[in-house]
Amino acid sequence: MQELKQKILTDGRVKNEHVLAVDSFLNHQLDIPLFDKMGEYFFNRFKDRGITKILTIESSGIAVACFTARYFNVPVVFARKTQSLTLSAMDDKYCTEVYSFTKQTQYSVFVSQRYLNQDDVILLIDDFLANGQALMGMADLVSQAGAKLAGAGIVIEKAFQEGGGKVREAGIEVCSLARIQAMKEGRITFID
Amino acid sequence: MQELKQKILTDGRVKNEHVLAVDSFLNHQLDIPLFDKMGEYFFNRFKDRGITKILTIESSGIAVACFTARYFNVPVVFARKTQSLTLSAMDDKYCTEVYSFTKQTQYSVFVSQRYLNQDDVILLIDDFLANGQALMGMADLVSQAGAKLAGAGIVIEKAFQEGGGKVREAGIEVCSLARIQAMKEGRITFID
Repeated sequence: MQELKQKILTDGRVKNEHVLAVDSFLNHQLDIPLFDKMGEYFFNRFKDRGITKILTIESSGIAVACFTARYFNVPVVFARKTQSLTLSAMDDKYCTEVYSFTKQTQYSVFVSQRYLNQDDVILLIDDFLANGQALMGMADLVSQAGAKLAGAGIVIEKAFQEGGGKVREAGIEVCSLARIQAMKEGRITFID
Repeated sequence: MQELKQKILTDGRVKNEHVLAVDSFLNHQLDIPLFDKMGEYFFNRFKDRGITKILTIESSGIAVACFTARYFNVPVVFARKTQSLTLSAMDDKYCTEVYSFTKQTQYSVFVSQRYLNQDDVILLIDDFLANGQALMGMADLVSQAGAKLAGAGIVIEKAFQEGGGKVREAGIEVCSLARIQAMKEGRITFID
């Protein structure tokens, strides 16, 4: 997606060869018209798949998931990381473990069994694909529910990490809006 | 907002006199058309205030903030709870402490100084107003930035808790879409 790549080049800040800060438009301050276009892009890519729900993980995936869901006219379900009083009494959950590269911690995420079931056709959405842990965790939740996985929409794929290869080998169709080949000496290059 | 109140009555689950589960449409599975209408409602209420940004706290406020920001055509900034590698090197932050009633924990939230400044006119958005801690924390961030606080849009106010009174006494104009008076014996009553 050309507009996103341009935005990454102008507003992204390369911290080192592995870390890209996009907090000015993607995961701290949010550029709403850009999010709307990203949602439309994912819709055009997956609109013929009979998607019934968009699944993401809190927090940074929620906004992209919402703007995508608006085009599909389906609900968003976001996997939650932590218990709260209102959810602790929740009857049954699907749970899985995810390792966060940027936070360097392992955490559990869960989805209530009420909101994922075998009639669902799921599109996964997330802001980053790096080591693939979040996507594989969400795919596991979909599998536990007996739902069908239609594919995954990713805003930025760090193609120099192993996640993209891993999830595609697992049979997941991935649509990444920007695939970063490398960030060497502060310069970002994309895979077309 | 009549449609929201109706949704609370039909789909909300009263856990006890203090705890209302609205995870089927508000904070786990998200009813996107309803979110869109909530955003439009907040826009109509605050559209004449020169709002430049919507501020919320991750995670449950993000979706409402996004749909509100879409009407205002301004960015969302969401205060973050935890550090990540991409943000740790962030030059300067405004920080404040928030106590979560539903999670019974104290946590820090921060906003990069890049994304809040003295020229901003801020609308706060959150899903719940209960003890008022999250709103007061966000108001503190706005104050630290020297920005102007236009008001706060809340989806569900638990009017039987002290938060609503506290934030209004602090001079914050609050627009709550549904104000719950009580949840006794599983029955929800609203303040009109």
